[in-house]
Amino acid sequence: MNMESSSAHKATLAHARVAIRARTYWSAFSERPVGNAYGEGAVEAGEMAFKALLGKQFPIDQPNSRNLFAGAEKSPYGMELGITYPRSSVAELVAAGQAAMAHWPAVGPDARAEVLIEAVVRLNRASPLMAAAIMHTTGQAPTMAFQANGPNAQDRALEAIAYAFDAMEAVPRHPVFWEKKLHNQRPPMRVEKHFRIVPRGISVAIASGTFPTWNSYPGIFASLAGGNAVIVKPNPRAILPMAISVDIIRGALRDAGYDPNLVTLCVDTPEELIAKDLALDPAVKIVDYTGSSEFGEWLEENAKQATVYAEKTGINTVIIDNFDDLDGMASNLAFAFCLYSGQMCTTPQNVFIPEGGITSGTRSYSFDEVAKRLAGAVDELVSKPSRAAEILGAIQSEATLERIDEARKAGEIVLDSRAVDHPKYPQARMRTPLIVKLAGDDAANQNRKCFGPIVFLVPTRDTADSIARMQASAQANGAMTVSLYSRDRETIARTELAAAKAGVNLSVNFTGSLYVNLSAAFSDFHGSGANPASNATLVNHGFVEGRYRVVQTGIELGSTS
Amino acid sequence: MNMESSSAHKATLAHARVAIRARTYWSAFSERPVGNAYGEGAVEAGEMAFKALLGKQFPIDQPNSRNLFAGAEKSPYGMELGITYPRSSVAELVAAGQAAMAHWPAVGPDARAEVLIEAVVRLNRASPLMAAAIMHTTGQAPTMAFQANGPNAQDRALEAIAYAFDAMEAVPRHPVFWEKKLHNQRPPMRVEKHFRIVPRGISVAIASGTFPTWNSYPGIFASLAGGNAVIVKPNPRAILPMAISVDIIRGALRDAGYDPNLVTLCVDTPEELIAKDLALDPAVKIVDYTGSSEFGEWLEENAKQATVYAEKTGINTVIIDNFDDLDGMASNLAFAFCLYSGQMCTTPQNVFIPEGGITSGTRSYSFDEVAKRLAGAVDELVSKPSRAAEILGAIQSEATLERIDEARKAGEIVLDSRAVDHPKYPQARMRTPLIVKLAGDDAANQNRKCFGPIVFLVPTRDTADSIARMQASAQANGAMTVSLYSRDRETIARTELAAAKAGVNLSVNFTGSLYVNLSAAFSDFHGSGANPASNATLVNHGFVEGRYRVVQTGIELGSTS
Repeated sequence: MNMESSSAHKATLAHARVAIRARTYWSAFSERPVGNAYGEGAVEAGEMAFKALLGKQFPIDQPNSRNLFAGAEKSPYGMELGITYPRSSVAELVAAGQAAMAHWPAVGPDARAEVLIEAVVRLNRASPLMAAAIMHTTGQAPTMAFQANGPNAQDRALEAIAYAFDAMEAVPRHPVFWEKKLHNQRPPMRVEKHFRIVPRGISVAIASGTFPTWNSYPGIFASLAGGNAVIVKPNPRAILPMAISVDIIRGALRDAGYDPNLVTLCVDTPEELIAKDLALDPAVKIVDYTGSSEFGEWLEENAKQATVYAEKTGINTVIIDNFDDLDGMASNLAFAFCLYSGQMCTTPQNVFIPEGGITSGTRSYSFDEVAKRLAGAVDELVSKPSRAAEILGAIQSEATLERIDEARKAGEIVLDSRAVDHPKYPQARMRTPLIVKLAGDDAANQNRKCFGPIVFLVPTRDTADSIARMQASAQANGAMTVSLYSRDRETIARTELAAAKAGVNLSVNFTGSLYVNLSAAFSDFHGSGANPASNATLVNHGFVEGRYRVVQTGIELGSTS
Repeated sequence: MNMESSSAHKATLAHARVAIRARTYWSAFSERPVGNAYGEGAVEAGEMAFKALLGKQFPIDQPNSRNLFAGAEKSPYGMELGITYPRSSVAELVAAGQAAMAHWPAVGPDARAEVLIEAVVRLNRASPLMAAAIMHTTGQAPTMAFQANGPNAQDRALEAIAYAFDAMEAVPRHPVFWEKKLHNQRPPMRVEKHFRIVPRGISVAIASGTFPTWNSYPGIFASLAGGNAVIVKPNPRAILPMAISVDIIRGALRDAGYDPNLVTLCVDTPEELIAKDLALDPAVKIVDYTGSSEFGEWLEENAKQATVYAEKTGINTVIIDNFDDLDGMASNLAFAFCLYSGQMCTTPQNVFIPEGGITSGTRSYSFDEVAKRLAGAVDELVSKPSRAAEILGAIQSEATLERIDEARKAGEIVLDSRAVDHPKYPQARMRTPLIVKLAGDDAANQNRKCFGPIVFLVPTRDTADSIARMQASAQANGAMTVSLYSRDRETIARTELAAAKAGVNLSVNFTGSLYVNLSAAFSDFHGSGANPASNATLVNHGFVEGRYRVVQTGIELGSTS
């Protein structure tokens, strides 16, 4: 790194530290793949770079003594990627991480932050390549693949570095002179105290198959900032985005003179899963995880030697009360339902609507009229194949298709799910959202998480009942988001209180181009840790502080040679 | 509270917030029971107030529907206290705490900090009473009973309030205006965001029998500051100090218009222990604990619905290397061994000395000469009964006497333990320290925690071996303190590194009137959380942040009525 970049990185860190406390809008990176930020023809160059990786061994120079390689990714848009990755053993990755940690803690928070920000900047430059890699592993459509896994994910990484740095700054970095005067003429007690940031050990990041970078960068960068080494364990369906990430971070570390084995990739196969062995290794002291509640809870129960930060599944809800802008509501919710075919931890699933309907403006709308309005808005949104492809993306997993079929039987179909032809990829696995009206007392289906493009409309006695159901569901099933539409301030206040009790973030009256699914770095806290959907927050001080300890030395003054 | 006290409390909080980051010497309270701070005759008044409580029901007006009372404390100085306390049921205390939490979270961090500081100030005024209560439950001698459980404990409470407030201040307390401009002529996204501090639920403080106030105030005050209600569960041997504390905090809450049931006392009996039931109650979300590793680990394994902050037992060590001021070392260590008869989690137990001896000044001292010097210093310190009584205090538990007898068989007795007559309390349970030389390869005894006045001298190959043993022991057994005596900078640096790896705080060359056992609020971090002796630190940001969550509301602007 040259001096310019060092001073630029310092400025970025300073901005980020202000931003995490202000929580107004701030971003370090452009969301536009076209234009000046990424250079002329960046999108095409990214696609070319992606294609150049297909059918080969991914070039990553980490320990792999067995010389085994694995990888069987298949794009939800149809093609086999044919890329293989080093299948290093857990033991050699742990040993390499521990060896790399011999010097990393002593480097100090400033130097660590600087090289990590350099890594984030390099990740940013690679955003067009990342977009292609994400698209053909997760199924995300190009725009989301670029924004959410490029600049937005990089912002979350920067946010984690800023929080870690900010937290470590609360501990004196220079020796402290402690003097206590005594009342009885005895000489004062005088001690020089040193406070040392001590890392926890090996940190493991278990990435999801749908948002691998966005969800795992915070843990990876916070752990590195705290002085730990990180082993990244991608989902076998979405290895490439994490392989690219690991490779770029390794390059930044290497170029700055640090051991690249501070970050390694741990690849497994669906036939021989390795996550459990990795998470239970005694050297592993931190585990970050995003994925199913089942495995998240297994980690919490079993990986007792480690601090586990887990984002699991929940059921997100919408409460529709009397509200005037039905068109704005319907189009906003339709987009929220459709975006990436509901394969987001923030997508709404259960929509509570009073069985007697609502009022809007001067007239009343029955439950079925509201349902029809929502269905119409969804249908409209996905009517044109090109637009449908850009919003829906592709379905990552076959299991999601089965889930749609299953959900059809849950109640009365308001809008059926149908296959869509992708204009460019004829093999793409695409489905429009299914909207089903459940019976109001169908607790089984209301409490069933249906990951994917599945929306349940639930009749309630009234909005008070909707609020109570939202709270009970979030407390029992977990939830990342609640969305409310109401023109009544009192109802908004009561919902806010219920959401706070259930530990779930509330979005009120979103009718424009901002959607409940989206979480903005430096402003939105993603996951509260206060209901079963997560035990931590992306990102806050609590997310970073368990990644290091402070150990002190006190030297009595005058007594050393 | 009047305006003066409110403004004084604000100033105290501001000072405390500076102090937690500076970590130089600062204290809010006087350590001298005589003089101006506590008024004329404060000590005598405290004793009188204590005596007035004996043989009666302790007046605390918390729910106790069964009208049961319990209490069978016996002073280690001989007398029965005869005080009984309401034996409220867990269910009614949980319900009362939950009811009290209906309003407490909305009060906000400022108002909570203010009334909590008022409570700490009231505790400070009651320090003379607390000293008598501590002395006759824990066995501490009068000076320590006053200082450690009065002003020093109150400082730690204030430190916890300051950390909690500081942490909560990282989250915007006023609505934030978030605006994201869009590039394609669309109107900007505009959202007003509110961030709400949400408490976890019922917090339980399980206090120790030896330092009930000092160890449990941080958890109690941090939980209250975060908006939780706290149930205090004292050790059946040392209920009175916590009953007084709970009563005083309740008074401050009540006088400020808050529900006093935010803090209640949960008393059990040795025949019917209640800590497990209490810790496993589903409403309990936070547990603070100080005590045996056995129960601490049980809590960590079983109280999964809660965040557990546990300080458990460890084995503290001393490394003696070549060092010039042998007199200073011996007298300092002797005091550290004797203070409160080794009944501190910070007391050294294993002393590593090279088998070939050390050099001091221009001459050599054999292992046995060093041993003799230490034994001589201890013997000297406890030779006068009045001084012995002031330093040793009394032995709290019969089990400690048995432990001394057991330890006599571990090796060669260098200094035997003997009973001492207390000048004022003929029944006092007092013993001088036992010093035993172990075989260098006696791993069983070197890895056995012997709580009480028991010191093992361990011959090592050389100081490098001593350092390695210290590190291995701290990593395996846990440790709160390591003490090193060396004139060699290189050895100091190597020990510092080894101590950091083992996550244990190091004191170097203490020869004056500061002892390794003592931990100063606002400067020393007590417990690193980095070895088996503790999983948390008194006090840092990490200790307070798990006591609340943040839940946000985003309201799209322009869309509400």
